[in-house]
Amino acid sequence: MIVTLLTDYGYVDEFAGVCRGVILGICPDCTVVDVTHGIPRHDVRRGALALRASLPHMPPGVHVAVVDPQVGTERRALALRCEDGRLLVGPDNGLLSLAWERFGGVVEAVDISRSSHRLEPVSATFHGRDIFSPVAARLAAGAEPADAGELVDPAGLVVLELPRPWVDREGVTAHALAIDGFGNVSLDVGHGELAGTGLALGRTITVKAGGASHRAGFVSSFADVSEREMLLYEDAHRALAIAVNRGDAAATLGVRVDDEIRLSPQ
Amino acid sequence: MIVTLLTDYGYVDEFAGVCRGVILGICPDCTVVDVTHGIPRHDVRRGALALRASLPHMPPGVHVAVVDPQVGTERRALALRCEDGRLLVGPDNGLLSLAWERFGGVVEAVDISRSSHRLEPVSATFHGRDIFSPVAARLAAGAEPADAGELVDPAGLVVLELPRPWVDREGVTAHALAIDGFGNVSLDVGHGELAGTGLALGRTITVKAGGASHRAGFVSSFADVSEREMLLYEDAHRALAIAVNRGDAAATLGVRVDDEIRLSPQ
Amino acid sequence: MIVTLLTDYGYVDEFAGVCRGVILGICPDCTVVDVTHGIPRHDVRRGALALRASLPHMPPGVHVAVVDPQVGTERRALALRCEDGRLLVGPDNGLLSLAWERFGGVVEAVDISRSSHRLEPVSATFHGRDIFSPVAARLAAGAEPADAGELVDPAGLVVLELPRPWVDREGVTAHALAIDGFGNVSLDVGHGELAGTGLALGRTITVKAGGASHRAGFVSSFADVSEREMLLYEDAHRALAIAVNRGDAAATLGVRVDDEIRLSPQ
Repeated sequence: MIVTLLTDYGYVDEFAGVCRGVILGICPDCTVVDVTHGIPRHDVRRGALALRASLPHMPPGVHVAVVDPQVGTERRALALRCEDGRLLVGPDNGLLSLAWERFGGVVEAVDISRSSHRLEPVSATFHGRDIFSPVAARLAAGAEPADAGELVDPAGLVVLELPRPWVDREGVTAHALAIDGFGNVSLDVGHGELAGTGLALGRTITVKAGGASHRAGFVSSFADVSEREMLLYEDAHRALAIAVNRGDAAATLGVRVDDEIRLSPQ
Repeated sequence: MIVTLLTDYGYVDEFAGVCRGVILGICPDCTVVDVTHGIPRHDVRRGALALRASLPHMPPGVHVAVVDPQVGTERRALALRCEDGRLLVGPDNGLLSLAWERFGGVVEAVDISRSSHRLEPVSATFHGRDIFSPVAARLAAGAEPADAGELVDPAGLVVLELPRPWVDREGVTAHALAIDGFGNVSLDVGHGELAGTGLALGRTITVKAGGASHRAGFVSSFADVSEREMLLYEDAHRALAIAVNRGDAAATLGVRVDDEIRLSPQ
Repeated sequence: MIVTLLTDYGYVDEFAGVCRGVILGICPDCTVVDVTHGIPRHDVRRGALALRASLPHMPPGVHVAVVDPQVGTERRALALRCEDGRLLVGPDNGLLSLAWERFGGVVEAVDISRSSHRLEPVSATFHGRDIFSPVAARLAAGAEPADAGELVDPAGLVVLELPRPWVDREGVTAHALAIDGFGNVSLDVGHGELAGTGLALGRTITVKAGGASHRAGFVSSFADVSEREMLLYEDAHRALAIAVNRGDAAATLGVRVDDEIRLSPQ
């Protein structure tokens, strides 16, 4: 059985390693797969997007995610079964919601905040070790989600709200949905939403952000533009994205997550 | 069999990967678990604390640690058996000492500097590859520590000395024992040592460091204070620690490892 | 079967994790070993050197490397069988060439750009997920390279050209071949090429770079010089290298990759 881990614990401290150890101690036959531990600290949105982008490529199993700025409060800890059978484990702060939407929704939701599978004594600050990892390992070893805590109504789970683009006849007002480690900016708009905007593959586009205008080619890949040129392209997750070939688009545009970016044909 | 790895090799170079490869080449059936490779370069103290914090959560096995500023000198290389059966492998510079204290002390100590399990030719700079990993893999595959080198007296091993706090009737003079990747400052004092100091959960505390005074709440978790407020809390390792909610306590206090921090009731 | 991964995907995004997931989904019994994902972005040279340095220490298997600035262009994607039986998978940009030279050359080369093993639809930017990982996993599961694409002539593969040192009677004009995460500078010259130069272990050396001169000891290990002193030594890959004990030699010398460094006896 696969247990995947996605956290914002980083690579300096031993936190991610401790979670691996806890899981293997409880379920020695499972395979722990690190999705990433480099989610920027407390960035629930970024974690949720990375989870949605990665889990469809992971073998079905138990999928743990911990980006948890409210650890120690009354926010619930969750184990969820998706329509397609995958199990998700993490805090009830929206982190898991984009993934479960991708997997057909939640068919069983369990509040594991006081799970009998926890490691006692439970710390106030390290629920990755004390709650999420041991519960995930028990599930990987065959335990039923319903036995991991208290059943709750899936309708009451926290859902992450994403910005929405505005499409009109002169273009699209989109938003920076996420910025990856290379400065590439994913937008909240897909290729399929461009009908009638005048934006089409092969055209030159005007990109407006923060009061400044930039020229970008709407192309298939980085290789279609020169070095240091800006491009609009469909990224690996089928979203439109802005990049600078061998450069940093987010820095060039001066945008941060959620900032508006206006795309129009030139 | 589990082989855990903790090093300061970082994530840029291939050094940690090479250690994984060496171990799996010798012991294909073992599971290599990365504790972390992000220990700050040459920071033996930080490595020793991370090892002590993580190993109790790891399945028993062979535990390799390499933070080794004296590599290439006559410092010994060690394989140790702890009272509880765990095997530790690393340099004789104190790195392993906090962990073996946690596991009941050393019952068998072997100098592996000239072990027959080494990879020849042994380099002057990469003993993680040439000595520690191959010896650990042989132990994981069932070899006896005594056959890995020359038995030595456990009493002669280098032990890491930690600072000690000073407790009086007006508070505690503690030290910054370690600073994690988020800037949280672990202290060398535990909750149990506070009797008679006037410091108690729920009170407001004065934190003095570097000539400046700060106010902090003595609380259970980050969520008990507002954003940007300082807190004193018991961390996941049962040590007292100072943090700033969504901030960097070490930067706010201007402290580095071993600096004095005075805690007194307000 | 072992599948090793070396990329420039970094540790922030989920890209490396996705590759692990794709491989384990196709070949659940294989062991994925991360060599490193910290190769500086698009640095094919650095990736090729890290691959050559690490693979000899990895169990034979399928070895994936992705440092791929031309992804999305017509550059070929490759699966190669080396003389010694190892399989290499990656872009045809020289990244694999130093490794295959080490393993006896290429005996079978397959263009996998349109492999039937690809994940459809193939993105323009993430061939690690869509081409390299699934092909590698199929090979690990027993598929024949010849069935993974179209056989091509090994003589036509892109080979990485490295700088070459100039040896004369007064010393050596070498180049910075690579700079590791600690600032240690590997040179393109080995100990065996120093005959007749006056450079010998135990002597003091003049190191000239960028118009400035520095003194360095030609020694066996860091421990042979004082803190902050410069040293010339044979590194773990049997190349000569320059370091500063507990410092950063590249910063001290002001050199970058390929810069000339003149070594002469003092």
